[in-house]
Amino acid sequence: MPLTLDEINTAPLADAPRLLDGIYEHSPWVAEEALTQRPFATLAQLKWALVQAVQEAGVEAQLALIRAHPELAGKAMMSRTLTAESTQEQNRAGLTDCTPDEFARIQQLNADYNARFGFPFILAVRGPRGTGLAKQQIIETFARRLANHPDFERAEALRNIHRIAEIRLNEKFGQEPRLGNEVWDWHERLARHSDQGHAEKGQLTVTYLTEAHRACAEQLSQWMRESGFDEVQIDAVGNVVGRYRPAQAAGADGASAAAREAANRQEGDAANDATGAPPAQYLLTGSHYDTVRNGGKYDGRLGIFVPMACVRELHRAGRRLPFGIEVVAFAEEEGQRYKATFLGSGALVGAFDPAWLDQEDAEGITMRKAMEDAGLCIAEIPRLKRDPADYLGYVEVHIEQGPVLNEMGLPLAVVTSINASSRYRCSITGMASHAGTTPMKRRRDAAAAAAELLVYMEQRATQDGDSVATMGMLQVPDGSVNVVPGRCEFSLDLRAPSDTQRDALVADVLQKLNEICQRRGLQYVAERSMQASCAPSDATLQAHWEAAVAKLGLPVHRMPSGAGHDAMKIHQILPQAMLFVRGENNGISHNPLESTTADDMQLAVQAFSDVLQQLAQEHP
Amino acid sequence: MPLTLDEINTAPLADAPRLLDGIYEHSPWVAEEALTQRPFATLAQLKWALVQAVQEAGVEAQLALIRAHPELAGKAMMSRTLTAESTQEQNRAGLTDCTPDEFARIQQLNADYNARFGFPFILAVRGPRGTGLAKQQIIETFARRLANHPDFERAEALRNIHRIAEIRLNEKFGQEPRLGNEVWDWHERLARHSDQGHAEKGQLTVTYLTEAHRACAEQLSQWMRESGFDEVQIDAVGNVVGRYRPAQAAGADGASAAAREAANRQEGDAANDATGAPPAQYLLTGSHYDTVRNGGKYDGRLGIFVPMACVRELHRAGRRLPFGIEVVAFAEEEGQRYKATFLGSGALVGAFDPAWLDQEDAEGITMRKAMEDAGLCIAEIPRLKRDPADYLGYVEVHIEQGPVLNEMGLPLAVVTSINASSRYRCSITGMASHAGTTPMKRRRDAAAAAAELLVYMEQRATQDGDSVATMGMLQVPDGSVNVVPGRCEFSLDLRAPSDTQRDALVADVLQKLNEICQRRGLQYVAERSMQASCAPSDATLQAHWEAAVAKLGLPVHRMPSGAGHDAMKIHQILPQAMLFVRGENNGISHNPLESTTADDMQLAVQAFSDVLQQLAQEHP
Repeated sequence: MPLTLDEINTAPLADAPRLLDGIYEHSPWVAEEALTQRPFATLAQLKWALVQAVQEAGVEAQLALIRAHPELAGKAMMSRTLTAESTQEQNRAGLTDCTPDEFARIQQLNADYNARFGFPFILAVRGPRGTGLAKQQIIETFARRLANHPDFERAEALRNIHRIAEIRLNEKFGQEPRLGNEVWDWHERLARHSDQGHAEKGQLTVTYLTEAHRACAEQLSQWMRESGFDEVQIDAVGNVVGRYRPAQAAGADGASAAAREAANRQEGDAANDATGAPPAQYLLTGSHYDTVRNGGKYDGRLGIFVPMACVRELHRAGRRLPFGIEVVAFAEEEGQRYKATFLGSGALVGAFDPAWLDQEDAEGITMRKAMEDAGLCIAEIPRLKRDPADYLGYVEVHIEQGPVLNEMGLPLAVVTSINASSRYRCSITGMASHAGTTPMKRRRDAAAAAAELLVYMEQRATQDGDSVATMGMLQVPDGSVNVVPGRCEFSLDLRAPSDTQRDALVADVLQKLNEICQRRGLQYVAERSMQASCAPSDATLQAHWEAAVAKLGLPVHRMPSGAGHDAMKIHQILPQAMLFVRGENNGISHNPLESTTADDMQLAVQAFSDVLQQLAQEHP
Repeated sequence: MPLTLDEINTAPLADAPRLLDGIYEHSPWVAEEALTQRPFATLAQLKWALVQAVQEAGVEAQLALIRAHPELAGKAMMSRTLTAESTQEQNRAGLTDCTPDEFARIQQLNADYNARFGFPFILAVRGPRGTGLAKQQIIETFARRLANHPDFERAEALRNIHRIAEIRLNEKFGQEPRLGNEVWDWHERLARHSDQGHAEKGQLTVTYLTEAHRACAEQLSQWMRESGFDEVQIDAVGNVVGRYRPAQAAGADGASAAAREAANRQEGDAANDATGAPPAQYLLTGSHYDTVRNGGKYDGRLGIFVPMACVRELHRAGRRLPFGIEVVAFAEEEGQRYKATFLGSGALVGAFDPAWLDQEDAEGITMRKAMEDAGLCIAEIPRLKRDPADYLGYVEVHIEQGPVLNEMGLPLAVVTSINASSRYRCSITGMASHAGTTPMKRRRDAAAAAAELLVYMEQRATQDGDSVATMGMLQVPDGSVNVVPGRCEFSLDLRAPSDTQRDALVADVLQKLNEICQRRGLQYVAERSMQASCAPSDATLQAHWEAAVAKLGLPVHRMPSGAGHDAMKIHQILPQAMLFVRGENNGISHNPLESTTADDMQLAVQAFSDVLQQLAQEHP
């Protein structure tokens, strides 16, 4: 019989911890501490209480918790003295079935790791539905983490412990994250398509209108149809658009799906107009399905699959809402194949610039040619522009792509604003000279000037608290060990939650650059390559996300989005608000290590469903 | 009738400035001020007094002096209102004979330059013996200098004014730098040989044992013979060795030159031993004739040609000294074709490592093969090691390869020590992450850490006064504008006049690197790629250089050598001391812009001759 929250909430305080035996390896104090927070409305709330108990226990207790764990495929496994839970987990990961070479490699890693950190290596080896890490991945992760900084690695060990506890709790409570697992599966299956055949390592490259990209669009169309969307089409820029009609429209319309699609494409919501009633509005949502080169599986796609799962649930339950749901899988956001970015969401706000059609990719193929080859009807692009009157607004779910939630141990956050940003390409020119013979005071060192700027930028952005400043590209072209750099090239990426805060940051950084170069006798060029205004969340939509997160039993964490998203484009015509989902591995993104969990995706689906319910009550 | 120093020294103070009319364009105050320093023992001393007068006059007076000059091929030239001196100079440079395109280009440059700096462009367009800059070179220099920092360009304008004054003074005094011109000619003629056919632009590439390198060796051998060296040979590593015998040995030996050479090669100074007297010692001197890729004409070679000129003068005068003079044109110092450096001077101290023979160049040719193809007898290399008892010591003349003398307006300096140096290849590994979503306090930015180190290094070296620290290579591999750098690679080059000072600098920099990485949670690697001990000058030899410089009427400026030189190798077996000669163009080296003047070379030849005289008195 699975455990219930009711049992947890009502057991005498002295007995309750025993109900959670084995969740935190040999460390009953974690449950004892968390249970002082009873009652728990949701399993997510209990999990959060457990995380907090560990967070507040201090470093010594945390180290004791880590050290209470067995080594991976270590002596305890060999001597069969593992806990039942650990035995089962190491078994399932195939660790009890290592080749002698694998075993020797793991023993060496165990020894090195222990010598470096003073605690055993801990990795949540089980994923959802048997998708746990394979032995080889475990060994790779082990080797990678061995290089981490000790403080960081301690936090990483704790995060893995919490993930192990989450999986054990799900089992104890018989609460598999069914919707989260299905969303996980969609990500896995879509990740089979990649431009460069690295999909098996999770290294995805899906750029605009390549073969893999078009296969993704076909796959998404198919899944949308299977999920019960009434109308599904690939539009003139390659967006996959699925519409789930509102209650009255679906009921009033008996025409075939194909006829409805054709009518819709040509007449907007004319099908509704024909009934005489004012046409019901739609909630617009979605995200992009293209990736950066060698990117991850979740960036963008999570924002397609979460609403798809919600629509599938509505469809399975035979339910419709007073408004329609339009999920758009945007064809392009990352700007990888062509310089233009946000092609997909840009087209919906009328921002598709026909001049882009003549841009060439690395192989000289124009965007026009690529679109024609894909069978897209370029002439139709202007008609993709949406009329704001047809929509309630826009919401988007996205992985955080940052470390904040991962570090806090929280699965969800509500976005307050998409940050304003400016980018610059800069170069400083000084005088290359002999590193041995040029006295320090007579140098015109371009790299030293860039270094001074970088140190300043870091302090200046930190001072704001929520601004960020990055010198992501930095190089001394053709530098030699014994030559004082005569030239240094670098980029600036400056972001802040508001335009004025961003502008002040940019002004200070550029003034500092000027001051440094004046003082050092250097020339510089700083060319702005990009500027984007901030996109503050709509108060009402943001409040819906907040209410949904609170209903899950989780604290509402509000944060700005440092990354740009399709919501930033749609912001030009519609109110918008976003939900962030925690990324694993310190929130790494644009990287094959990008990851999240089925549990967190489950919570995202639940939150999205709740927002739909709130909107249904608001727009009856 | 040429002017004489006697006239200058004895004229009434009111009349004397008129004797120097036209030397500094429309600016008699320069001569007036300089003449308060009378009497002048040498023309060099008068020139130095004029330079000092301008240096001490302050910025306003300097700007007035610069503005007193006409534009290059400007209105004054067109309207024939130039001074006689300027007319002649612009005439000789072919500026009165521009094509319409050239003229238009120069007018545009004049306008741009004036708008930027507020004074006319000034360039000493006449070199020695009709080797003035061609119109095209003038235009290129003009465009290059337009990019300079205003403070630097003001100093550059003044340096050109002093150079123009020097040329005008030489003419007025009828003192062409004959020996300097001959040394200049040798450099020009040797620069015709280059591996890559860029010699016509002064871009020299002459690496170990290439065709151009071997042609240089043949040419040097020929010139040594023509200059009167008694024995000339190309040794087993490709050094060109010329020996000018001491008085008694040359007198006692009636054998043919070829026989003497053969005897010498096999028996050392057996020819002398045959007389029964203790063999006279030799003064060892020289420098290298190889170059870096796309290097200049003077690096190394000046140290071959200056003593060659001295020997030629002795030979022309039929004079011999109580000691012999051995000039070695070292085959290799720069380490360009193979990783090994100082092959030439290294062989003389027994430091040729036979393992080097298996090193391959970029085309896979081993050093052994290259040496065999050049007809060198590898088995003879160990016998190249010199016996210190045979030598008085080692002296070397070299261009400064730095900006110090250029900025001071001084032609010569005496080297106190060749600096100790250490080089490191470093990398810092952090965590690549999203530039928008990673808060400043959660970053592990490898570039920011390197920047912090560079800023520290600069301060730390400056604090020593005469240490130097350089991050010549610096790059974020595969950096992107929107990614926090997860890795940064860079080099360190740390030098100081003493080993202990260098060691303290290295220790502080590495400790700072460690501290920064600890604090920021980063990993780093720092691998030492090179370490060389300092080579302090021999007090006696250094004193000879100082006396020689003083006798030229110049202040004695002592300075360490930041660059390594053949003297550093020879230091292992012999006392040594070096003389530095000012480089033009801010002392730039390892660059086609590397340059010096015939006047400065003349002074170097005079100083070297004086050292020979001093040694002759010391070793009668």
